[in-house]
Amino acid sequence: MNIICIQENLKENLDNALRIIKYNSTLPILNNFLLTTDKGRLKISSTDLEIGFTSWVSSKILKDGSITVPAQLLSQFVNNLPNKNINLEVKDQKLYLNCDNIKASINGLNSDDFPIIPKIKNVSTLIINSKILKEALSNVINSAALSNSRPEISSIYLRIEPDQIKFITTDSFRLAHKTLFLTSEDLKNKIKINYQKSQNIIIPLRTAGEILRILGDKNIDVSINIDQNQILFDLGDTHLISRLIEGNYPDYKAIIPKSFETKCYLSRNSLEEAVKLSGCFSSRLNEVALKTNSSKSYLEVFSNNNEVGNHQTKINSEIKGEDVNITFNWRYLLDGLKNINNEEIVLEFNGDQKPAVIKPVKSADFFYILMPIKNT
Amino acid sequence: MNIICIQENLKENLDNALRIIKYNSTLPILNNFLLTTDKGRLKISSTDLEIGFTSWVSSKILKDGSITVPAQLLSQFVNNLPNKNINLEVKDQKLYLNCDNIKASINGLNSDDFPIIPKIKNVSTLIINSKILKEALSNVINSAALSNSRPEISSIYLRIEPDQIKFITTDSFRLAHKTLFLTSEDLKNKIKINYQKSQNIIIPLRTAGEILRILGDKNIDVSINIDQNQILFDLGDTHLISRLIEGNYPDYKAIIPKSFETKCYLSRNSLEEAVKLSGCFSSRLNEVALKTNSSKSYLEVFSNNNEVGNHQTKINSEIKGEDVNITFNWRYLLDGLKNINNEEIVLEFNGDQKPAVIKPVKSADFFYILMPIKNT
Repeated sequence: MNIICIQENLKENLDNALRIIKYNSTLPILNNFLLTTDKGRLKISSTDLEIGFTSWVSSKILKDGSITVPAQLLSQFVNNLPNKNINLEVKDQKLYLNCDNIKASINGLNSDDFPIIPKIKNVSTLIINSKILKEALSNVINSAALSNSRPEISSIYLRIEPDQIKFITTDSFRLAHKTLFLTSEDLKNKIKINYQKSQNIIIPLRTAGEILRILGDKNIDVSINIDQNQILFDLGDTHLISRLIEGNYPDYKAIIPKSFETKCYLSRNSLEEAVKLSGCFSSRLNEVALKTNSSKSYLEVFSNNNEVGNHQTKINSEIKGEDVNITFNWRYLLDGLKNINNEEIVLEFNGDQKPAVIKPVKSADFFYILMPIKNT
Repeated sequence: MNIICIQENLKENLDNALRIIKYNSTLPILNNFLLTTDKGRLKISSTDLEIGFTSWVSSKILKDGSITVPAQLLSQFVNNLPNKNINLEVKDQKLYLNCDNIKASINGLNSDDFPIIPKIKNVSTLIINSKILKEALSNVINSAALSNSRPEISSIYLRIEPDQIKFITTDSFRLAHKTLFLTSEDLKNKIKINYQKSQNIIIPLRTAGEILRILGDKNIDVSINIDQNQILFDLGDTHLISRLIEGNYPDYKAIIPKSFETKCYLSRNSLEEAVKLSGCFSSRLNEVALKTNSSKSYLEVFSNNNEVGNHQTKINSEIKGEDVNITFNWRYLLDGLKNINNEEIVLEFNGDQKPAVIKPVKSADFFYILMPIKNT
């Protein structure tokens, strides 16, 4: 291999490829990048055996070839090079770099030993604008379970139907539910579903996090290919392929309340500020109490910690139905509020022991279900 | 106590006061702020018994008084309040806060139990512009010893003479030396020394770090008062008082070379970039080699790690005297380069086993002495 490319292009792609790598002491080659010439470009690959990352960098190819080299070292070195042309040449299992008055050689391994990154049949299931995808993933990702003990909910559940795509997460204490309606004016030209049949897939949380990061502020079409066990995110010059989680997603529909005894309309910002203040005073149980006062039209946000003190904020609200006095985990409540992009929201309750719903007043595309902390 | 002040003013002062506090489980009152009304303002104090912090916040005083309350809680709570008027009132050993539609009460302790922050005689030793002080401290602070095992060098050594102030740090592997010449045009109106006799003091590293942080981007006169055991930094509305380190500073003058066998003139930026690249390849010993080539007028920066590879950068240099091949710790070399504000620098050597000096070509106000790693 003998190629020339520009430092800035190489650097960005190496940075992205490096993120996929989890340090592996039993299979050291997984700490390497695979560099290969591929149809006139340099292909960079990395994998942790669950996620495979590939990206292509425009290069001048003087001689085809390949090598694998330590990822951390190459990435750090290229980061520190000036933004000029870099020559990368492979000789005797070593990668030689030349840039301006700078030379380096990096010991490599045979590229045949690098694990094969799986392929997926090249049929696009879905094409979606990157900004739409990013917003949808961002709105739900903080409600997924972090623990690996229940992998099926340490995930984002995706339901693809002819006219809508749903993104669902839960950690069994709360549930976030985002819908992209393909019929909406905003989305008409930004999503295209190549519909065969309904597809329900479970995407590992880490995969979703990496995709979010790689999407960054891009404004491009992302093509998503799905087969039985795998998903491919195709961003053009960058591919991320991941296994899907097998098994069944919990039957979350059963817990979505169908009617409500109380509705409380208020400002999202005001509630967010009050919940943060409560967080200062809540005990280890992270408790915050919400008390409606329908006759005086306010919601009281209250927290108390006998050792240190207490806090109370009153927020103007329009309240319909029975008054409630309900206790939540303030961190979960805050997560839900952060996921709502609208300022006018409604809280919906069925007494103080049943799940509540938080959602924007004027939009049906998002709701957040929150279990109360039961009063003992 | 019953006062009204503005959230923004209170927040900034609480943030600064909080930084001084190191969590203390044996003397819990040290985790508190002392709040006192003081001549028409609110005085906030915190201390870890080594550093005492005091600042004054403009307030409307309705009733004099004082209390101590948990610092972390008050700071976090006030940070989350809207930028409006806050009423703080003390009743029954509790601090009641009112701001807009928000109420809180925080359990306090009797202010008599709060340790007394020592005072210092009110004679200014030195008045110095905050930007000048910040630059001088910044230029040397990264070369002080971090460990507490030798407290006298985990410090900044300050030598105050009639016409100059020296700032010196060392960790026994390198030494940074900054001088403010009061005769220089730049400094004439920015430093005033109330000279009695030469004063040599040893300021704890942590104190220097806190002062640097509090100075921030301010452009004000800082008055420095020194007595036998203590130093006071008076920023007007903020006072920081610290104990000084007793004992003798090492006789650093003995290691300052008086003549040189080799001088190498080059660009600071080029050397910094090359040293960073070397860092990617250096082994656990952090070694980087500098080799002068006087006949071809370049300095070669070289690092090698048998396991992973090697790197070499050639930098155009004007070299006078014998060629050298000398090895340094690349991190220490980088620290020294970062402290030089000029682009033209000179490296001065006496062979490969003796300390080298790095300094700007056109300024006498800074030099950095670096011990080589001895070739075995």
